[in-house]
Amino acid sequence: MPPWFHRFVMNHTASCYLGILGGMGPLAGAAFAMRLAALTPASIDQQHIPALLLNDPRIPDRSTARLYGGTDPWPAMLRGIRMLNDAGARLIAVPCNTAHLWYEQMAQASDCEVLHIIEAVAQDLQRQGITRGRIGLMGTAATLGLGLYQQTLEKHGYTCIVPTEEEIDTLCMGSIRAVKGNQVEASFAPAAECIERLRMRGADAVVLGCTELPLAVPHALRKSLGIPLTDSIDALALAAIAHYQLHSLESEAVPA
Amino acid sequence: MPPWFHRFVMNHTASCYLGILGGMGPLAGAAFAMRLAALTPASIDQQHIPALLLNDPRIPDRSTARLYGGTDPWPAMLRGIRMLNDAGARLIAVPCNTAHLWYEQMAQASDCEVLHIIEAVAQDLQRQGITRGRIGLMGTAATLGLGLYQQTLEKHGYTCIVPTEEEIDTLCMGSIRAVKGNQVEASFAPAAECIERLRMRGADAVVLGCTELPLAVPHALRKSLGIPLTDSIDALALAAIAHYQLHSLESEAVPA
Repeated sequence: MPPWFHRFVMNHTASCYLGILGGMGPLAGAAFAMRLAALTPASIDQQHIPALLLNDPRIPDRSTARLYGGTDPWPAMLRGIRMLNDAGARLIAVPCNTAHLWYEQMAQASDCEVLHIIEAVAQDLQRQGITRGRIGLMGTAATLGLGLYQQTLEKHGYTCIVPTEEEIDTLCMGSIRAVKGNQVEASFAPAAECIERLRMRGADAVVLGCTELPLAVPHALRKSLGIPLTDSIDALALAAIAHYQLHSLESEAVPA
Repeated sequence: MPPWFHRFVMNHTASCYLGILGGMGPLAGAAFAMRLAALTPASIDQQHIPALLLNDPRIPDRSTARLYGGTDPWPAMLRGIRMLNDAGARLIAVPCNTAHLWYEQMAQASDCEVLHIIEAVAQDLQRQGITRGRIGLMGTAATLGLGLYQQTLEKHGYTCIVPTEEEIDTLCMGSIRAVKGNQVEASFAPAAECIERLRMRGADAVVLGCTELPLAVPHALRKSLGIPLTDSIDALALAAIAHYQLHSLESEAVPA
């Protein structure tokens, strides 16, 4: 594993947490913490990134708020950002795509940088060698209906293929609701059906653009789907690891 | 899902976190948060238990400290307990068996109750209908060498079967080190070999008594091993859920 990583982790004995504003949903927040550990180049505990996961499922539903005028989640999200700041977070990750409809507010409220999950997915596509082409999107009705992915991916030169409203409701949201309801086994079939339809319509890759969807489509089954996937949990974890790497290199260039 | 659960979670809008002192190791800490969510009776995000996971992998190695005079992990553990208390934890879970060699100190230092992972495993054996008999133990050299499980399980009337020193080093620690080093696939074979040897020596059930071991032995493969297992991550998560249930019922009996 790269020597910068040890130096970084070992040299920072306080206030260098990766803050994770989770709970949206709680299984996805915890899965992000697991993938962060699993994707970090480490051979013993002490080489991992210190993380603080605020897995608070009481944050009101983001989609309901944006689409149907439900309770505003922003006050609860703001409390979470402040709590992570107060605890010494030096970077914040929010493993919920729909929550990024509030990205500007989160970034402005936070003392430290907040990673952007959609940018992390765009970087992950490039990391996989998919630098152009048609990207099939999966996500919540709010994420897709309000163009969260479309804006960013089109800026990067991709064309987006969006499921129909009915497909979003039955296949994407069907799978997402099953994960949120702890029916993970039932969540695979609708997600796989949506991926297949996007593939048939010419997608070169599909974005699992809701953090429940990577739980619906287990890593072991992905190759069998016949199309590259980008997983918004893994993409965000890789962005966090890359940020720690960059910071460490900067610290070496300018010793404290 | 039980109505008490909704009332409990919805009625407590602040300071009712389950504090999780994790990072020992980080994959196990995050896995505990995932299993807590997966085992909770919930159908939407807002019905889950609010959790705060301090996944700080910089806590010095517990086994090395106890067996070879390595750096004392207690100051780092104490900082973690205090941070969780300050954040409003009303119950603390520590998903690391070896850390329970410091249980009395943790319980004394904390403002709120600290669950005991070994007691949670004993409860899980009873929940599975295993109320007596011979229990095969797996865990770190420190956990097994210092009798952490033996004391509690013998108090509950079980007989313990402990692997030999060589088996602990090659099979238990071999599997644990593989998980901590992110080599999860390589961790299965030594764990399965140890389970088989304990079964051959007459064990009625085997305790996965280190929180890395449930990651080594995936749920999907457990039935094929031919012996009941108790998983210290799941046992601790179930104990936390039961505590929230009990507290809720008490709240109903004595309204605030």
